[in-house]
Amino acid sequence: MHALLARLYPICRSITGDGVRQTLAVVGEYLPALVVHEVPSGTPALDWTVPVEWNIRDAWVKNAAGERVIDFRAHNLHVLQYSQPKHGWVTRQELEEHLFSLPDQPDLIPYRTSYYQPNWGFCLSHRQREQLLDEHYEIGIDSTLDEAGSLTYGELVLPGATEEEVLLSCHCCHPSLANDNLSGLVVAVGLARWLAREPRRYTYRFVFGPGTIGSIVWLSRNPAAVARIRHGLVLTLLGGPGQFTYKQSRRRTAEIDQAVALVLRDAGPPHEVRPWLPYGYDERQYGSPGFNLPVGCLSRTPFGEFPEYHTSADTPDFVRPAELAGSLALVQAVCAALEHNRIYRNLSPFGEPQLGRRGLYKGVGGGQEGADWQMALLWLLNLSDGSASLLAVAAQANLPLPLLHRAAHALEAAGLLAAVAAGG
Amino acid sequence: MHALLARLYPICRSITGDGVRQTLAVVGEYLPALVVHEVPSGTPALDWTVPVEWNIRDAWVKNAAGERVIDFRAHNLHVLQYSQPKHGWVTRQELEEHLFSLPDQPDLIPYRTSYYQPNWGFCLSHRQREQLLDEHYEIGIDSTLDEAGSLTYGELVLPGATEEEVLLSCHCCHPSLANDNLSGLVVAVGLARWLAREPRRYTYRFVFGPGTIGSIVWLSRNPAAVARIRHGLVLTLLGGPGQFTYKQSRRRTAEIDQAVALVLRDAGPPHEVRPWLPYGYDERQYGSPGFNLPVGCLSRTPFGEFPEYHTSADTPDFVRPAELAGSLALVQAVCAALEHNRIYRNLSPFGEPQLGRRGLYKGVGGGQEGADWQMALLWLLNLSDGSASLLAVAAQANLPLPLLHRAAHALEAAGLLAAVAAGG
Amino acid sequence: MHALLARLYPICRSITGDGVRQTLAVVGEYLPALVVHEVPSGTPALDWTVPVEWNIRDAWVKNAAGERVIDFRAHNLHVLQYSQPKHGWVTRQELEEHLFSLPDQPDLIPYRTSYYQPNWGFCLSHRQREQLLDEHYEIGIDSTLDEAGSLTYGELVLPGATEEEVLLSCHCCHPSLANDNLSGLVVAVGLARWLAREPRRYTYRFVFGPGTIGSIVWLSRNPAAVARIRHGLVLTLLGGPGQFTYKQSRRRTAEIDQAVALVLRDAGPPHEVRPWLPYGYDERQYGSPGFNLPVGCLSRTPFGEFPEYHTSADTPDFVRPAELAGSLALVQAVCAALEHNRIYRNLSPFGEPQLGRRGLYKGVGGGQEGADWQMALLWLLNLSDGSASLLAVAAQANLPLPLLHRAAHALEAAGLLAAVAAGG
Repeated sequence: MHALLARLYPICRSITGDGVRQTLAVVGEYLPALVVHEVPSGTPALDWTVPVEWNIRDAWVKNAAGERVIDFRAHNLHVLQYSQPKHGWVTRQELEEHLFSLPDQPDLIPYRTSYYQPNWGFCLSHRQREQLLDEHYEIGIDSTLDEAGSLTYGELVLPGATEEEVLLSCHCCHPSLANDNLSGLVVAVGLARWLAREPRRYTYRFVFGPGTIGSIVWLSRNPAAVARIRHGLVLTLLGGPGQFTYKQSRRRTAEIDQAVALVLRDAGPPHEVRPWLPYGYDERQYGSPGFNLPVGCLSRTPFGEFPEYHTSADTPDFVRPAELAGSLALVQAVCAALEHNRIYRNLSPFGEPQLGRRGLYKGVGGGQEGADWQMALLWLLNLSDGSASLLAVAAQANLPLPLLHRAAHALEAAGLLAAVAAGG
Repeated sequence: MHALLARLYPICRSITGDGVRQTLAVVGEYLPALVVHEVPSGTPALDWTVPVEWNIRDAWVKNAAGERVIDFRAHNLHVLQYSQPKHGWVTRQELEEHLFSLPDQPDLIPYRTSYYQPNWGFCLSHRQREQLLDEHYEIGIDSTLDEAGSLTYGELVLPGATEEEVLLSCHCCHPSLANDNLSGLVVAVGLARWLAREPRRYTYRFVFGPGTIGSIVWLSRNPAAVARIRHGLVLTLLGGPGQFTYKQSRRRTAEIDQAVALVLRDAGPPHEVRPWLPYGYDERQYGSPGFNLPVGCLSRTPFGEFPEYHTSADTPDFVRPAELAGSLALVQAVCAALEHNRIYRNLSPFGEPQLGRRGLYKGVGGGQEGADWQMALLWLLNLSDGSASLLAVAAQANLPLPLLHRAAHALEAAGLLAAVAAGG
Repeated sequence: MHALLARLYPICRSITGDGVRQTLAVVGEYLPALVVHEVPSGTPALDWTVPVEWNIRDAWVKNAAGERVIDFRAHNLHVLQYSQPKHGWVTRQELEEHLFSLPDQPDLIPYRTSYYQPNWGFCLSHRQREQLLDEHYEIGIDSTLDEAGSLTYGELVLPGATEEEVLLSCHCCHPSLANDNLSGLVVAVGLARWLAREPRRYTYRFVFGPGTIGSIVWLSRNPAAVARIRHGLVLTLLGGPGQFTYKQSRRRTAEIDQAVALVLRDAGPPHEVRPWLPYGYDERQYGSPGFNLPVGCLSRTPFGEFPEYHTSADTPDFVRPAELAGSLALVQAVCAALEHNRIYRNLSPFGEPQLGRRGLYKGVGGGQEGADWQMALLWLLNLSDGSASLLAVAAQANLPLPLLHRAAHALEAAGLLAAVAAGG
């Protein structure tokens, strides 16, 4: 995953434009079934309108000596996203009104956008800014804002045994920023490749689109798929340091909320589960009251809570392969939790069935594992009255989900449990 | 308010009699619409009967030398309330059985009553009592217990846009005690004068009556008004020191309980919310199971928890103007919380509406206020699905009520929210 | 109770056999109405089958010199329960595979069973085991496993005013172990003798049977009684040291769970209430999902949590008369809580009834008792709206159950309360 991330890092993405197309083309090498959609600028989408397409080729500020003192070619964060085309001389004072820097982090270039308000500007380190002492500067922004353009997003569907869907969503609109958002994207790619090889009860739908407007466009165009979504996750910030942080869906106790909480519990501390908040990533759109989809957001250290966030310090070096691998393992466990979740009914509910004569009592191993195995059998038999899902049993029994999955299958094989419904 | 309190302090009030009439006459100067009711002694009221009217003109104990050693004219707490008329000589031993003092607070005169059990007596400081060494004393109690009398209470109705009512109740039966109960009375007067000038969705009803029997009489005589009460507060002990203490209504999670808890939260610590208890002030009657009205009780340090309680130390000096003003501000905020509480529906519930093109995104100011404003808009849009009241939004969003009121009005003006019901 | 326990201690009980019969014969001396049932081996019972009857007369291991180095006559724990009959010479290596000892508690003999898996064996202290150095040993097990035998259990029914039942269950299958299980048995006997002399609303049913298979057999044979069970307790480990530990029924908030929690609260700390767990004693069978009976389990220090558990150190000396007496008092209080639990309706629900003229206000005594009495009256009047049981009132009012029982009866006598239903 890290190699893919490093390959995608230099591309200058935005909410529209060729950077997104190049990114999705690379993703398509890994996920051949990926479908890339183009939605024309001006298309209505819920309360919004697809914006004009922005592309940027070059941007610079030259000093009186003609030297490039700010240079898009050196770092694509140097240009304010959606900057209008511009060429000419400006006074330093005029220029200052269009510069963005971070006095508290003087070596870093900030990431700034102005998607919906016409503007132009440059981002630079505060040290660099302090050296701009000339009275006049020549500026050039070689961008286009094309009303005949389009918004681009990618979609991958992995059909399952049922039409019920799990939505995985990540944004792909940030330029050279590695943890935000490429880490989420490469974990999603890793997950999709793994799921493609696994048996699937659920149909899995991956959406790779620009933040906010991407999910709004997708929601506006897919009412039938929206109605089939049973669970969902927004994946973001999964490669940096820090503990896992799960933000609950708007429903707060949805099956996805239970599943992630238990997978995190099984993984052990430290981790954090935070309540729903109508601010953050695309879960805001999926969780708007009209849709109210059970979509949570999984990250490591959340946005705004690490100093590299939205700066030039968010590089591929900041993202570590071990963190990406750990994140992938966690979302795999979440998918397994959803796939295995069932409501069972004990078919021998009067008294305990005699496990000994069915060879179930001795357990799969000695010591604590054997004791846990026995307790998993007893809890499943005791709580499976046709109302408790495996997730509910796992929560009450305080036993690991994979152990309960194995125990449920063993009891099913012995004719003692029968699944009566999908988990709830 | 403190001037009114000081003016009312010298009057010798009881549960009936001219002291109440004089008090309500003064209150009527501030609240011209106040209606004073007289209910004849002997009138049945729920499980009770209106007691005989008690009036007291003088009361004294003279020593052998003919000196007044206990003198009602020095302090009206000196006489046991509802003392029967009495004149004659008694031995010290007989007298002792009718004296009330506080050995642990030897300088203070206690407040004692015997409304429903015929008796007579004197209250005095323990130091004073220790000086009563004569063998015989002459006593005089110039009181009347009039079966042809009446019970007096005052009532003020401020009509609102709806017939739904908010009940504010305070007792007016204590003689020269300032925090209990005059502080509640003067805060109620201040609130009524403020509400009279404000637009009102609710009709506000103020009841100024004697404790227990007053609310019982009022409840017995006003079945139609009882049915219109949506929220209520008993106001008491609002001028002494100490943090605010709110005692929940019997319903515990009624709208008034939510409103007061949030107003106290917004005001910041220290404060305390206590659960319902069938002991205290007139909320006991409003919260009896047959009525079960959502009436809580607001005070500062509760009864029995400060040393001056029910003693001669509860003087106008013990009540501070700043505390009265703070109490008034708090109950005003509670009324505002009730007035503004609505259940809204988001009229653009699919995805977030684009706030930027409606000029709502920039917020009302910079810094934290701007961020809070934006969060208020997002929370209101997200939770307004036709079931959550503003109070519920304020609780979940952890944002101040006045900010949410402004944000709700801005969204309503922008056509994004519509009120669908009164708050619940 | 301790004398009975000491008398029963030497008997070698198992899940079937003469030891159980002898035990129940002794119990029958204390409870003449006890009925002893014999259920033939091979009888189906729910998912199980009644096992063959096991009896043991002697068991020994002799060394080369012919000396008994392990001797059943010295302690009946020395033989593995349900050991098959055996006689002959074995090598030390063969013998070692059939020995059970506790290396961490080298002076104690463990208690081991093999009811459902054919086997033979000896239990001994680890020190004793370390002295077995001979190459060959002669072993003798004089036992019978009789397919024409039966399983024995005892049952006592104390009819009450209603057919609704309280089930008290304890196991009687352990050989010379005092706390487990004789303590539970003698407390049950004490309780039955006390209940027999008390007025009873409920019918009380005591079951004295072998663990697991005993309750399964009883459940399989008594569908009508099962349907009448309203509350139940498994009694065990009630004579050793340690705080009371109550394990909730599967329903977790059943009336028995409320009652025990409040009785323990009234008794004061230390004590512990633990959540339901499908492991432990016969509550596992009563709480299987098909029956889902509200049966909890009361013990002092639970099984496995004290070092003497299931060893030769669990002697009559380990069980203290004071602990037995305290346990009996506690279960008596639980029965009283169930017997008195009612849902009342306040017959004067509008306002507080005037307690003074009914002589109820002064209370039964001075000081805190008087204040608590008054609060008990007020809470009962306030909460008795036809939905709250006495247990619910006791929980919310935080007042002792016996005080509430007295107060409820006083209010009932005064015509202010009427019971509308059994507690719930």
